[in-house]
Amino acid sequence: MASLKLGMVGSGFMGKAHAMALHTAPVVFPLSAAVRCDLLADHSAASAQAGARRLGFSRSTGDWRELVADPAIDIVSVCAPNDLHYPIARAALLAGKHVFCEKPLALDVGESRELARLARSKGRVTLVGFNYVRNPVIGMAAELIARGELGAIHHVRATHVEDYLADPARSGGWRTRRATAGLGALGDLCHVLSLTQRLAGGIAEVCADMQTVIAQRPGADGSAQAVENEDQAHALVRFSSGAIGTIECSRIAWGRKNGLTIELSGSEGSLYFDQERQNELWLYRRPRGGGGGEGFQRVLLGPDQPDYAAFCPAPGHGLGFNDLKVIEVRDLVEAIAGGVPAWPDFAAAAAIDEVLAAMERSWRQGGWEVVPRGLEVEQGKAQEPEQ
Amino acid sequence: MASLKLGMVGSGFMGKAHAMALHTAPVVFPLSAAVRCDLLADHSAASAQAGARRLGFSRSTGDWRELVADPAIDIVSVCAPNDLHYPIARAALLAGKHVFCEKPLALDVGESRELARLARSKGRVTLVGFNYVRNPVIGMAAELIARGELGAIHHVRATHVEDYLADPARSGGWRTRRATAGLGALGDLCHVLSLTQRLAGGIAEVCADMQTVIAQRPGADGSAQAVENEDQAHALVRFSSGAIGTIECSRIAWGRKNGLTIELSGSEGSLYFDQERQNELWLYRRPRGGGGGEGFQRVLLGPDQPDYAAFCPAPGHGLGFNDLKVIEVRDLVEAIAGGVPAWPDFAAAAAIDEVLAAMERSWRQGGWEVVPRGLEVEQGKAQEPEQ
Amino acid sequence: MASLKLGMVGSGFMGKAHAMALHTAPVVFPLSAAVRCDLLADHSAASAQAGARRLGFSRSTGDWRELVADPAIDIVSVCAPNDLHYPIARAALLAGKHVFCEKPLALDVGESRELARLARSKGRVTLVGFNYVRNPVIGMAAELIARGELGAIHHVRATHVEDYLADPARSGGWRTRRATAGLGALGDLCHVLSLTQRLAGGIAEVCADMQTVIAQRPGADGSAQAVENEDQAHALVRFSSGAIGTIECSRIAWGRKNGLTIELSGSEGSLYFDQERQNELWLYRRPRGGGGGEGFQRVLLGPDQPDYAAFCPAPGHGLGFNDLKVIEVRDLVEAIAGGVPAWPDFAAAAAIDEVLAAMERSWRQGGWEVVPRGLEVEQGKAQEPEQ
Amino acid sequence: MASLKLGMVGSGFMGKAHAMALHTAPVVFPLSAAVRCDLLADHSAASAQAGARRLGFSRSTGDWRELVADPAIDIVSVCAPNDLHYPIARAALLAGKHVFCEKPLALDVGESRELARLARSKGRVTLVGFNYVRNPVIGMAAELIARGELGAIHHVRATHVEDYLADPARSGGWRTRRATAGLGALGDLCHVLSLTQRLAGGIAEVCADMQTVIAQRPGADGSAQAVENEDQAHALVRFSSGAIGTIECSRIAWGRKNGLTIELSGSEGSLYFDQERQNELWLYRRPRGGGGGEGFQRVLLGPDQPDYAAFCPAPGHGLGFNDLKVIEVRDLVEAIAGGVPAWPDFAAAAAIDEVLAAMERSWRQGGWEVVPRGLEVEQGKAQEPEQ
Repeated sequence: MASLKLGMVGSGFMGKAHAMALHTAPVVFPLSAAVRCDLLADHSAASAQAGARRLGFSRSTGDWRELVADPAIDIVSVCAPNDLHYPIARAALLAGKHVFCEKPLALDVGESRELARLARSKGRVTLVGFNYVRNPVIGMAAELIARGELGAIHHVRATHVEDYLADPARSGGWRTRRATAGLGALGDLCHVLSLTQRLAGGIAEVCADMQTVIAQRPGADGSAQAVENEDQAHALVRFSSGAIGTIECSRIAWGRKNGLTIELSGSEGSLYFDQERQNELWLYRRPRGGGGGEGFQRVLLGPDQPDYAAFCPAPGHGLGFNDLKVIEVRDLVEAIAGGVPAWPDFAAAAAIDEVLAAMERSWRQGGWEVVPRGLEVEQGKAQEPEQ
Repeated sequence: MASLKLGMVGSGFMGKAHAMALHTAPVVFPLSAAVRCDLLADHSAASAQAGARRLGFSRSTGDWRELVADPAIDIVSVCAPNDLHYPIARAALLAGKHVFCEKPLALDVGESRELARLARSKGRVTLVGFNYVRNPVIGMAAELIARGELGAIHHVRATHVEDYLADPARSGGWRTRRATAGLGALGDLCHVLSLTQRLAGGIAEVCADMQTVIAQRPGADGSAQAVENEDQAHALVRFSSGAIGTIECSRIAWGRKNGLTIELSGSEGSLYFDQERQNELWLYRRPRGGGGGEGFQRVLLGPDQPDYAAFCPAPGHGLGFNDLKVIEVRDLVEAIAGGVPAWPDFAAAAAIDEVLAAMERSWRQGGWEVVPRGLEVEQGKAQEPEQ
Repeated sequence: MASLKLGMVGSGFMGKAHAMALHTAPVVFPLSAAVRCDLLADHSAASAQAGARRLGFSRSTGDWRELVADPAIDIVSVCAPNDLHYPIARAALLAGKHVFCEKPLALDVGESRELARLARSKGRVTLVGFNYVRNPVIGMAAELIARGELGAIHHVRATHVEDYLADPARSGGWRTRRATAGLGALGDLCHVLSLTQRLAGGIAEVCADMQTVIAQRPGADGSAQAVENEDQAHALVRFSSGAIGTIECSRIAWGRKNGLTIELSGSEGSLYFDQERQNELWLYRRPRGGGGGEGFQRVLLGPDQPDYAAFCPAPGHGLGFNDLKVIEVRDLVEAIAGGVPAWPDFAAAAAIDEVLAAMERSWRQGGWEVVPRGLEVEQGKAQEPEQ
Repeated sequence: MASLKLGMVGSGFMGKAHAMALHTAPVVFPLSAAVRCDLLADHSAASAQAGARRLGFSRSTGDWRELVADPAIDIVSVCAPNDLHYPIARAALLAGKHVFCEKPLALDVGESRELARLARSKGRVTLVGFNYVRNPVIGMAAELIARGELGAIHHVRATHVEDYLADPARSGGWRTRRATAGLGALGDLCHVLSLTQRLAGGIAEVCADMQTVIAQRPGADGSAQAVENEDQAHALVRFSSGAIGTIECSRIAWGRKNGLTIELSGSEGSLYFDQERQNELWLYRRPRGGGGGEGFQRVLLGPDQPDYAAFCPAPGHGLGFNDLKVIEVRDLVEAIAGGVPAWPDFAAAAAIDEVLAAMERSWRQGGWEVVPRGLEVEQGKAQEPEQ
């Protein structure tokens, strides 16, 4: 069996999540190749060394350029701060590596486009960490839609609302500075776009509104710092399919902890999903026959749904956030060693960034904006994932 | 105790609801005046006679003009088809009656404005049947907001989505014709605007999208008839208070039976309401002290909330749709005989119609529209109800 | 149309509920007879006079014996304190009246048996106010069971738990004295038995445990008073059908306001009901075909379910507590004037009291107790209601 | 850092779960010792070799006795069929190993007692895989109770109901044979007892009822086989603390997939947990001050709760079933290398088996049974875990 060596940049929240998944995936799934946690880069040699020990990597370096240049490395996992995603991913592609990059792909849509083109020209596997789309519940929803159980989709209402910056006394850190974060709530919570893209396809037009509610926050030294990006944003959207809907992001919505939700209504039924109850799909099928007496049903994740059985043979036992990353690692490995296309790749992530950029333009100009067709569309391919 | 004589036009769904409430209210609440169900008008003498017997009225007539002109009548209740609301309400005001009118007040915002001005000049009590705002749960929400428990409101997400026309084989009847219904989903389900106005105040700007998904439906004779108004609509909204949000209406959302929901997020907390579970308020207060461990709480309606105890001294026993109408009748009587202003009166209903009209203009023109300030605002009064 | 004159004893919580229902029922339902709210009796002439005015009765008296003896009265509604149910109901039957009695029928099973026998010998209509069984959701559940959609019922778990005496600083009043209340939580909350009897039939054997957790409470004068009946009780039960299960009552379960719940599991499916969400039935049908992907569905009350459409033609609009009483009044009238048997009559209520008495014996003796077969069973009739 | 070598017997559902947790735990938690997945035993050499490769073990053997005797092995993980738990655990203890055993500890309470005594005399660390008690939500609940936020616990209602054998066409396999499974639903689902023990302490008396609803099932060859143990069981229980309650297990409850629930009511509040929504705790605190307006709150798991932050720094992201096993492995390692007592050890598991045995006796004899005091109680220690 082939063996792949992975180098990871970053050892924080997402670095740890990647490490957990890399160690767990081979036990959960039969993989077409082994993946070795080989080299860890971090902002300093000491931090990298400690991280490597903690996260089970063999080697470490204080310079990500060294990692990218290392000929032993097959895959570069990018878990560095957001403003480093672009330079690291670019350098990794130029060095001929496969790239597994956390979202957002870049802070600027132009850079995203460039990375997508570069990935295509280099022929390397790319995958962006929109892990929520890997939830077997979402897989089940996609299958139901593909089988036509909801009919033609008419409406989509999707949110990603949280309260991590609802407290004005909380420092925004890198998140509230344009140079380090790009967009605010929309940038952080653009998972909602991967979900709509997965289930309802590409977005053709948007009309958005945004607001920075808390204009200043304490910096590290306690002094007031200007907040440079939006706390909340929402948009009307029109999908290529003809469906219409709304999308909403907030980082100041008290009480919502991971309010990534989507409701789709079609000609034959509806479904609803809430990431805070990530093991449930709510499904309504229009009544057949005259009578009523039908309601939304709460379908619990079980071994009949894609990928669940590898974690547990019994239904209702529940997956967690980190399990989604395990599925992501499986998909990464199978894209490299098994010939199964991975989604969302850089082209798909760039398409999401096109939507974000169009939303911002729409807000600044006060009207509808057409979303430029993404790279995949240019090539005559759909923006949607393989079903 | 004073005694008021009421004449009602119409004996269908809403006429029956009014009759139930009129007979029940005096037992539930101590009222400042007795209300007598005196005269019922319907489209024919026979129908009116049957309706009067069924609904407990003393007299009947096949001509609403006769009812409006009857000097014995103090209050005219308008439960006729929507396209008759304007002429009946206008004639009733001109005849010096108090008017209790079902929504919508009119099919055209100009007519609504005219009725609002007429009501003011005549000095009569008017009340429009946005009954959901009378839910004690909404009263509790309004009190929480008024006391500042949610702080400054930043965001509003409100929906009224149902599935009564989701089946394309179902005839639209009067609902899908412009002349008889005016707007489609938005017109039927504009309750959502009374709810946002009650809890978040007036709307200053809107940007809307609309869609007629099912273009043709079978008519009464089975032939295909064009659908002349929208099946679904949604809008970005900006409130006078500075809050922003989204509003959505649909009559084709499979599975949603009375999906009148509202979520408000403010600087100190959030709340959520769903009319399908009309006896519950979901409330989140930001944690005090450092720790977390707090979540949305599900507050069940009980005697501590406004108006509930008159129905039942024990908490959690639940009110239903028709009980809201009983509270509405109480408010009508107290406005006439007790000097307590009733809301939403014709001016408030006209303000809602201004929002609807602005939404339609926004959709046709493809951008943001300013909502003209309503009659009350012209007079230096807020659009909001008395707290 | 026949006209029936009703005399009511009591003007408190339940008296008001009866009055509301009596005034509303003729508007909601076509009835086989008119019912006139004629005479109200209360503990004093003054109280009765005030009550009559408030509740819409024509006459009043300070002596219930006078009411029972009044030849104009056809129906006696018993809403007096619990310890008066037996003497009033007995006197009313002896006077040849139909009797509409609030639960409990009596404080002693011997008295209940006597009343059941008397009702039979007198041939009068009797109905006991177990209003929760009239919920159209329960009607729908009963129909599903009768049609075999759950198959053979194997298991029943039912609760009625509330927190109205959870606060030890709260006076128990008449509720905690044996002479005025009989049993404690079990007596108050024996609605749970009417629900199990309606959906799962009669109980053959019980094994119970009980506890008085708060031994003393402040009396009216602030002095400590002994609590003479149980705060919480639960039992293993064996149904005549072969199903087994548990039943539980509590008046000290913090947070539960009207926790009347029932879950039934059968060979073909399961259902769940919670009175705190009284407009929903949760229904699970075993998957047909191999696959899974099925869950409990939340069926909202709508016009397809029994009796709902009379209140509202649109689904999901919700009934409330007082609406159940309206259905009860309809059933009372139809039993008297329409020849439709009413359930639960005195015999059925006595059968419930047999279960309560067996539970108390079981607890005192520490083992299983057989429930004596009720009066209906003696007569070769089932304890169950007509389906 | 110390290094521990682990040998595992079995490579099925639970073997895989152990392997996943063993590989993940060192990345999630800082551990006081490394654990090496060294030797895997299975029923045949071939199966063991395949399992070792799949689950990441270095060596394999077709004979568990060889594993137990191997001097290199420090810890024996017992994931073999239930009827082998006792002989393997016994042999491992006699060989001086630490033992990590899946539930049930044995099929007979006498054997459980023997293992508990042996563990004590050998001074080895033992841990039984009641993984649900490791849920941080349960940890939070235990802390709330320990801090007195619920006051004195009065009532406990706990269930573990599933539907894995609801279909009579499904073979029972080893689960329905006394010799291989011992008890039926109660044995499989005795997790419910670990949960009550963790949150409400030891059980002093029980009164149980049981039933085998489906008497025959198809065997492997299609012929009818007798079912030798119960499909459903429930019991009244009395806790040592004075609280009372009910416990229920079923394997034929259609629609319930992992219905492990517990509701506790105390003098100051209540809580509710449902494993199907394993990241939520429902908490009710009695209102302070006069007013009402309080309800159960839904607290989502977050970094304020024990152990969660090691998996994810952001609240509401959710743990899954397999994460609980990771916490279990951490506790095992810390018990061996860090001096932190692990619970439930063999003594605690034997105490659970005493309750099960008493339930069965109660059912056979038809009355209340005293639960013999467990080994820990004999030693003057409480049955409860360290808080």
